[in-house]
Amino acid sequence: MNGAESLIRTALDCGVSVCFANPGTTEMPLVAALDTTEGIRCVLALFEGVCSGAADGYARMHESPAMTLLHLGPGFANSIANFHNARRARSAVLSVIGDHATWHHGYDAPLTSDIASLARPVSGWYRSSSSARMVARDTAAAIAAAGRYPGRIATLTVPADAQWDPADSAHSPMPIPSLPTVSGAAVSNAAAILGRGAKAVLFLGGLGLRANGLRAAARIAAKTGCFLMCETFPARLERGSDQPFVPRLPYFPEQALEALAPFDSMVIAGAPKPVAFFGYPNLPSVLVPDAFAVAGLAEPEQDVVAALEALADAVGAPKSASIAAIEQPSIPTGSLTGANIGAVLGALIPENAILMDEAATTGFSAFGASAGARPHTYLALTGGAIGQGLPCATGAAVACPDRKVIAFQADGGGMYTVQALWTNAREGLNITSVICNNRAYRILQVELARAGIKEPGPMARSLTRLDNPEINWTDLARGMGVPGVRVDNCEALAREFSKALKEPGPNLIEMLM
Amino acid sequence: MNGAESLIRTALDCGVSVCFANPGTTEMPLVAALDTTEGIRCVLALFEGVCSGAADGYARMHESPAMTLLHLGPGFANSIANFHNARRARSAVLSVIGDHATWHHGYDAPLTSDIASLARPVSGWYRSSSSARMVARDTAAAIAAAGRYPGRIATLTVPADAQWDPADSAHSPMPIPSLPTVSGAAVSNAAAILGRGAKAVLFLGGLGLRANGLRAAARIAAKTGCFLMCETFPARLERGSDQPFVPRLPYFPEQALEALAPFDSMVIAGAPKPVAFFGYPNLPSVLVPDAFAVAGLAEPEQDVVAALEALADAVGAPKSASIAAIEQPSIPTGSLTGANIGAVLGALIPENAILMDEAATTGFSAFGASAGARPHTYLALTGGAIGQGLPCATGAAVACPDRKVIAFQADGGGMYTVQALWTNAREGLNITSVICNNRAYRILQVELARAGIKEPGPMARSLTRLDNPEINWTDLARGMGVPGVRVDNCEALAREFSKALKEPGPNLIEMLM
Repeated sequence: MNGAESLIRTALDCGVSVCFANPGTTEMPLVAALDTTEGIRCVLALFEGVCSGAADGYARMHESPAMTLLHLGPGFANSIANFHNARRARSAVLSVIGDHATWHHGYDAPLTSDIASLARPVSGWYRSSSSARMVARDTAAAIAAAGRYPGRIATLTVPADAQWDPADSAHSPMPIPSLPTVSGAAVSNAAAILGRGAKAVLFLGGLGLRANGLRAAARIAAKTGCFLMCETFPARLERGSDQPFVPRLPYFPEQALEALAPFDSMVIAGAPKPVAFFGYPNLPSVLVPDAFAVAGLAEPEQDVVAALEALADAVGAPKSASIAAIEQPSIPTGSLTGANIGAVLGALIPENAILMDEAATTGFSAFGASAGARPHTYLALTGGAIGQGLPCATGAAVACPDRKVIAFQADGGGMYTVQALWTNAREGLNITSVICNNRAYRILQVELARAGIKEPGPMARSLTRLDNPEINWTDLARGMGVPGVRVDNCEALAREFSKALKEPGPNLIEMLM
Repeated sequence: MNGAESLIRTALDCGVSVCFANPGTTEMPLVAALDTTEGIRCVLALFEGVCSGAADGYARMHESPAMTLLHLGPGFANSIANFHNARRARSAVLSVIGDHATWHHGYDAPLTSDIASLARPVSGWYRSSSSARMVARDTAAAIAAAGRYPGRIATLTVPADAQWDPADSAHSPMPIPSLPTVSGAAVSNAAAILGRGAKAVLFLGGLGLRANGLRAAARIAAKTGCFLMCETFPARLERGSDQPFVPRLPYFPEQALEALAPFDSMVIAGAPKPVAFFGYPNLPSVLVPDAFAVAGLAEPEQDVVAALEALADAVGAPKSASIAAIEQPSIPTGSLTGANIGAVLGALIPENAILMDEAATTGFSAFGASAGARPHTYLALTGGAIGQGLPCATGAAVACPDRKVIAFQADGGGMYTVQALWTNAREGLNITSVICNNRAYRILQVELARAGIKEPGPMARSLTRLDNPEINWTDLARGMGVPGVRVDNCEALAREFSKALKEPGPNLIEMLM
């Protein structure tokens, strides 16, 4: 057994079953080990940002972490933006990077770089294996550090000689500590806030947005009359007609402040205290008004569900709460506005689907319109680094082969990691990509207007427009083996979306907005 | 004047005239300043790796550095791989990153990250502006640090409030120190090596590969009989029938050792001492045999041309040396092998063209075959981070609008930054992209064989093949506004390449190999 085989064997023993990879020369022993040690499915991507985004999507939908296998500092660098998003999603990932042989490193060959400096900003755990005999132990430690959800990116750099030199054996799995429970004081503080009256918000995030968290939250709301709201960009939210309606805190701070204006207090469970996505002159960073009474029930890394259940009991909530039914939207006609698109999706999303929303401005207005959809899982762009949507959908589809995945995608962000379509075709993944082709970085046009730039100059206009030339997404998809169609109204969208959902494998609908 | 305007004004005063950009919300004041301060051409790319690669190509072909404008840590992260290549090419770049307002940074909003940790591995100079009034001075310092060629990436992070707060004025340009000259001892040591006989190699890199460096090298060779050779991946090499033939040191170490075996000594000018691209078991890291007598004439950061001229004088070389004519290749017929493709290119490359070669395995064999082409500039993938070719061609075309640019590109690397095609169409750049569609990471297949894996397993086979599904590059190009054709033999390649070179604007030829 060499170091590479000890890594793959250990990963397998620790429950890793998928590897999103774009290896190079320094990872060849690991590639060979994937063949000699059967059991890990390798998914090739044509760009590393697809690997990291897919690992994120996989982690949100699967109990065990996926592995990524990337090529030295520059290969890893290409994965950083989506690892940034994965970190913000608290996704667990075993990130493996090959490096030069230890004895070659000092010669500053062209691909040499400071991998640790690149990896640390996104990695909750980092180590470089010092020798082949350390690799198995380091791998087990990395997987334990990655954890489950909420987890972290554990990055292990493995020099080439630590892969090909002899090793002893695999290392047995190391224990993953269970989530810390919250204190009784945290529960009673939260209960006291909710006892003050009906002007409280129960602000949910993280595990609080899974089915059992929402069930407890609905019980609390039924008893106390508190208003449920969730973080703007949830890593994973169970949604649709079997769940309470939980609006997201709006993205722009003015709207967020307005949404919170009717209230006087907040209990926070599974999310950080909400702050503005960006700082703006004359607007606060913290979106919770100073006058609010605030209680932190559970940090995202604590056992949020148990905390919500304890709070439900503490306020004397009923054992179960009925969910107010939200009417399923009917299919609108006419132009492809955000709300209309949301209604079409809301009418047609199949039960148990997974909807990855990186639809940016279109997604904001589509969200409310699709609230009454059949029960489904909703994934958002967590870290603001665009280009997460298509890869994250890829990973979710690998994690859940029996569920239909919908990649609801803005054109600007979609172009960042468009290579994901090729992996979808290669793996035959059941993903319908729905592209919002509005030929603009619309959110930047909004930001220019918000900054008081009423008539942007030619540079500002040009830098926010994608219409010269127009991108043809069906051509791009065809070029990577994914069939696609273009639609420009709701009727056509509904027809093509219904058809696409029935087809196996990937397909794409380009919405001309 | 605000901080953003002081930055743009200073950059303009320091000679910056192009900005490769993908800005976001935190860069809006800089975008507005580009409109109020006319004179910098903004080139939008749909992915940051295109911006950094374009800045690299621009720097190799232009006296003043280009600016890049990117969005916080994740936006910058997407640029790192091509900045890694740019660093290895010693390209000068003013890299500007917007960041959260200083007072917002501590709230850990979703896009917050450790930008310095990400930037330092590729930046020869790094600073974050502390306030608007510091921005102009910081910008001038960054541009001076970036220098010209050989230069560095100077990265300046500018928080949003340092952009919108009031500033005083632009800062005047700071002096760029001239290149250090080499010592007389370095020249006489090199002359002594060359005086030992005709078994010496003059190993050239950096500025030694520009026209005046090669002229001096040809003089030295004419007098001493030394053999000229250059670094494997030159940032810029003047080539063709008016230049001496300078073979590259082969990529694989066995071949490099074989290429050096007939010699006993080496003078190195403008390059580091050559080392293997990767470390392999039982092969040395340093490719120059221990028995060689070695003299370092000039470091890449020294005045290499003056050193070569001094050496020419020291050995008593003639004032000018005639260049042995290399026959221009004729157009072959039949299948698209690397050598055949090189001959087609060599026969048809127009005078004064720029050839960006990221053709990987195909490029290795094409290089020799195209030696007798009309005079042209050759650019190589310097840092081994694939995905440099298309963007670097974009930047070279922006720098040299009157020259035809040929992007000779492997399919694997091409997919990394395929978004460059859209920028080429948008800007109407005269770039003919010639794609080697061999449906494989061929170099990894070679590496597997070299590692003794004669029959790769299914994972190893799968991870090195791009044939499921096959990529259709003409579809991809069309989707981004670039016309393309497919060819599968030399006659068709010659016909379509001739035609493409006559058309203005970008086009693409997909070679099915």
